[in-house]
Amino acid sequence: MNETQFSKSVERWDVFEYSCRGPKTGNPFTERRITGVFTSENETATVDGFYDGDGVYRVRFMPSFTGDYRFAVTADFLDIPVSGAFRVTPAGSENHGPVRVANACHFAHEDGTPYYPVGTTCYVWELQSDTLQRRTLESLADGPFNKIRFCIFPKHYDYNLNEPRSYPYEGTPMDSSVLTKENFYQYSGNPEGNHFDYTRFNPEHFQHIEGCILALRGLGIEADLIVMHPYDRWGFCQMDAACDALYWNYVVARFAAYRNVWWSLANEYDLMSHKSISDWESYAAILCKKDPYRHLRSIHNCKPFYDYSRPWVTHCSIQRQDIYKTAEYTDEWRERYQKPVVLDEIAYEGNIQHGWGNITGQEMTRRFWEAACRGGYAGHGETYLNESGILWWSHGGVLHGDSPGRLKFLLKILKQTPGYGLKRWERTSWDEVAAVADQFADGGYYLFYYSFMRPSFRDFDFKDHENYSVEVIDTWETTIEDRGVHSGRFRVELPGKPYMAIRIRRTA
Amino acid sequence: MNETQFSKSVERWDVFEYSCRGPKTGNPFTERRITGVFTSENETATVDGFYDGDGVYRVRFMPSFTGDYRFAVTADFLDIPVSGAFRVTPAGSENHGPVRVANACHFAHEDGTPYYPVGTTCYVWELQSDTLQRRTLESLADGPFNKIRFCIFPKHYDYNLNEPRSYPYEGTPMDSSVLTKENFYQYSGNPEGNHFDYTRFNPEHFQHIEGCILALRGLGIEADLIVMHPYDRWGFCQMDAACDALYWNYVVARFAAYRNVWWSLANEYDLMSHKSISDWESYAAILCKKDPYRHLRSIHNCKPFYDYSRPWVTHCSIQRQDIYKTAEYTDEWRERYQKPVVLDEIAYEGNIQHGWGNITGQEMTRRFWEAACRGGYAGHGETYLNESGILWWSHGGVLHGDSPGRLKFLLKILKQTPGYGLKRWERTSWDEVAAVADQFADGGYYLFYYSFMRPSFRDFDFKDHENYSVEVIDTWETTIEDRGVHSGRFRVELPGKPYMAIRIRRTA
Repeated sequence: MNETQFSKSVERWDVFEYSCRGPKTGNPFTERRITGVFTSENETATVDGFYDGDGVYRVRFMPSFTGDYRFAVTADFLDIPVSGAFRVTPAGSENHGPVRVANACHFAHEDGTPYYPVGTTCYVWELQSDTLQRRTLESLADGPFNKIRFCIFPKHYDYNLNEPRSYPYEGTPMDSSVLTKENFYQYSGNPEGNHFDYTRFNPEHFQHIEGCILALRGLGIEADLIVMHPYDRWGFCQMDAACDALYWNYVVARFAAYRNVWWSLANEYDLMSHKSISDWESYAAILCKKDPYRHLRSIHNCKPFYDYSRPWVTHCSIQRQDIYKTAEYTDEWRERYQKPVVLDEIAYEGNIQHGWGNITGQEMTRRFWEAACRGGYAGHGETYLNESGILWWSHGGVLHGDSPGRLKFLLKILKQTPGYGLKRWERTSWDEVAAVADQFADGGYYLFYYSFMRPSFRDFDFKDHENYSVEVIDTWETTIEDRGVHSGRFRVELPGKPYMAIRIRRTA
Repeated sequence: MNETQFSKSVERWDVFEYSCRGPKTGNPFTERRITGVFTSENETATVDGFYDGDGVYRVRFMPSFTGDYRFAVTADFLDIPVSGAFRVTPAGSENHGPVRVANACHFAHEDGTPYYPVGTTCYVWELQSDTLQRRTLESLADGPFNKIRFCIFPKHYDYNLNEPRSYPYEGTPMDSSVLTKENFYQYSGNPEGNHFDYTRFNPEHFQHIEGCILALRGLGIEADLIVMHPYDRWGFCQMDAACDALYWNYVVARFAAYRNVWWSLANEYDLMSHKSISDWESYAAILCKKDPYRHLRSIHNCKPFYDYSRPWVTHCSIQRQDIYKTAEYTDEWRERYQKPVVLDEIAYEGNIQHGWGNITGQEMTRRFWEAACRGGYAGHGETYLNESGILWWSHGGVLHGDSPGRLKFLLKILKQTPGYGLKRWERTSWDEVAAVADQFADGGYYLFYYSFMRPSFRDFDFKDHENYSVEVIDTWETTIEDRGVHSGRFRVELPGKPYMAIRIRRTA
């Protein structure tokens, strides 16, 4: 055994990487295999490494515990395994570990810190110019979002016909100068004119995405990676099963060690006509087998839901089912699936022609509150037309909408929830949505939301012998007004405006 | 035969009334019977008369045709029938006859004039002070409404605990000074403390309502009479079957001859716990037997629908089924019942504490447009708190809301519909509601409504060889902007605001 003592140390839930040089000849992506086994007192994990181009091979690992680790790397091009050791130090103050499902329908980081997703979608922000990416990261740093959905493959769609900064495979794309707003649909899902080798990755494309995942991690933002999607003109959405498997394994080998990764198997899986349910199940099987960290896994629909009761699905990732109502179904879906309900697309704030991309900031914010008070989580996106042609939902950039500030306020309110999250109170009146803390039979915490209704007052009937602090929350103006301590029957005056809430908490 | 030649004439669809004196002794309401038979070339109708107090008996008839009529009145207190004749002159320019169902799901007056209901509710406006009633009529004269729902019996409910101007029966009511906002529920449906004789009507109460029906008729407004309702502290909602039958017969005998009467058997029939479905069917049977004019008949729910497929039900009279969506189900209900869908309560514009009474004017107006573009009709109501304690929904008075002006505009648009009304276009895109003229396979008329969505433009694809005039309608600002004539594929720019519509009409 070629024992190499590493004096290296790494933070818990950070990435330990072993790299070495190896053969460049033939097709290293398909012909070479490198694997690491990582062992500590508390865990043993086997992970695939990957070829990173230019003769470099890497094996990445995320340690889940502090203390001493040993590893052994084997490869078909190594005569004997390479082994070593490293020390895992405690997580830094901003590092809470990967996000897990907590208390059935909510989330928490692995260290127990509650996580209330306030997600956004910027499908290919990371494939834009350096300037635009920098601007996106600045927007994210200022904004409310702690999760962002984006694609590994480039995107071909209305308002997004430009070339990505790089392609995931070696080869050359079709001539995009022929594309127009009018004709782009006929190129969708048509690989003609492209010359890509779906067995040879372009490492630079993936390295760049890793940099983006790390940049997000630095901002405390989860990277909800959309691994496949139908908005394609390059053939990536209709590769054969062997190439798909190669891709999934490569993606896991490269990205799984980043603690802030979530796996979204697809966006609008049901629009990918070349894939069957058994294909999706086979990709899920790869994830379950090859990702030792069990990152969160879901798959996003256009119309029909995927079967979220499948054991590998950790949470629902739902698209709006109805123009008028969706967040309002959150509690039904919780009941049905007994998993967290994340409404990753409930229409976008904006003003484009499509009904999925032209709701107001008020309506976006209302949908978030409706979902939150029912114990689930809505998702943001923004599609405002502007002269630059840069739409947040596709390219990132600058936020133009009214909702982000209000979503930041909602997140602040959610962070004051006792425990991991809310659930709808079964005693909710028909004309309000009342939430209580999910994991306490009587948490003494009540959040009443009035949506677009405008009550001028509401009457309450709490226990006589207990005291409750009352606050009036303007979810749009983002204000919290103290209304003193009450017990028994009391009335709370309201301004007769939409989007008001009342928070009532038992005092010690 | 006691032939009396009348030189009287009456307008078609106006009221011909025969009156005479008769006995006052005993109980004329139960012991006496007077009937008229009216005959012309085109019709023969038998109608009950009624005792109007103070020894006066009346028989009323609404002639449906012009020309000469003869009549014979018989009564148990008359030895021989009284007969006579009168001439029916053509209807005046403002008199279009009673409203009928037209083209299955719409309405028209009997002379064929389309009628697009824009209704409101003022439950007991007619039982308030003279001043307040006058104010209500002024508001109605200025407003958009061509139908008003109100009760024959007084109302006991939140915000409406005062005494009515009169009671429908002889007797004395309970002492209402004991009532408070807090305790009124315990008096609901409880006849204790009242001393009414449910076999002796108070003619003055009914005479007054007749005056109100006539006043409405003069304004071109249909009187949607709510004959029974559960908001009661006097026992009127739980009389026995004999008294109920006496009441229904009396109501028909008195009111049926007014052409603008509609019969609403009940408001929230399902809250009237003393009545069964067979009771409602028995009242409907009285109406069908005794109202020779076949005025429109329906019954209004709180939660479960009445079976609107019953043959006697002329149209659906629906209350909101869902806080978020109701008007949006209009086309489903049309399909199911093949009758006009009138959403008589879809929440009220206002700011009271209850969720049914605190939506915005925008939301009220949106619900009207959603219903209209699906070929149905929403209903208005208003519940703004104010110092006078006078809420339109209960008392009438002055309108405070933002929606009435917009409903007037909607009515103007509806009056420009070819034929009797709209239906949802089966080729409507998922993110719009598009209406076409109901009774034409290709009416060349298209109304696209965008609800709370805010498209900045929409693309259309019409026939190349035909010309279409395009207008952009701001349903909130009540403006119509001419956008010229187009054919084939064309784009319509929009302001990216909510509540916009596009009207496209084929030009000759």
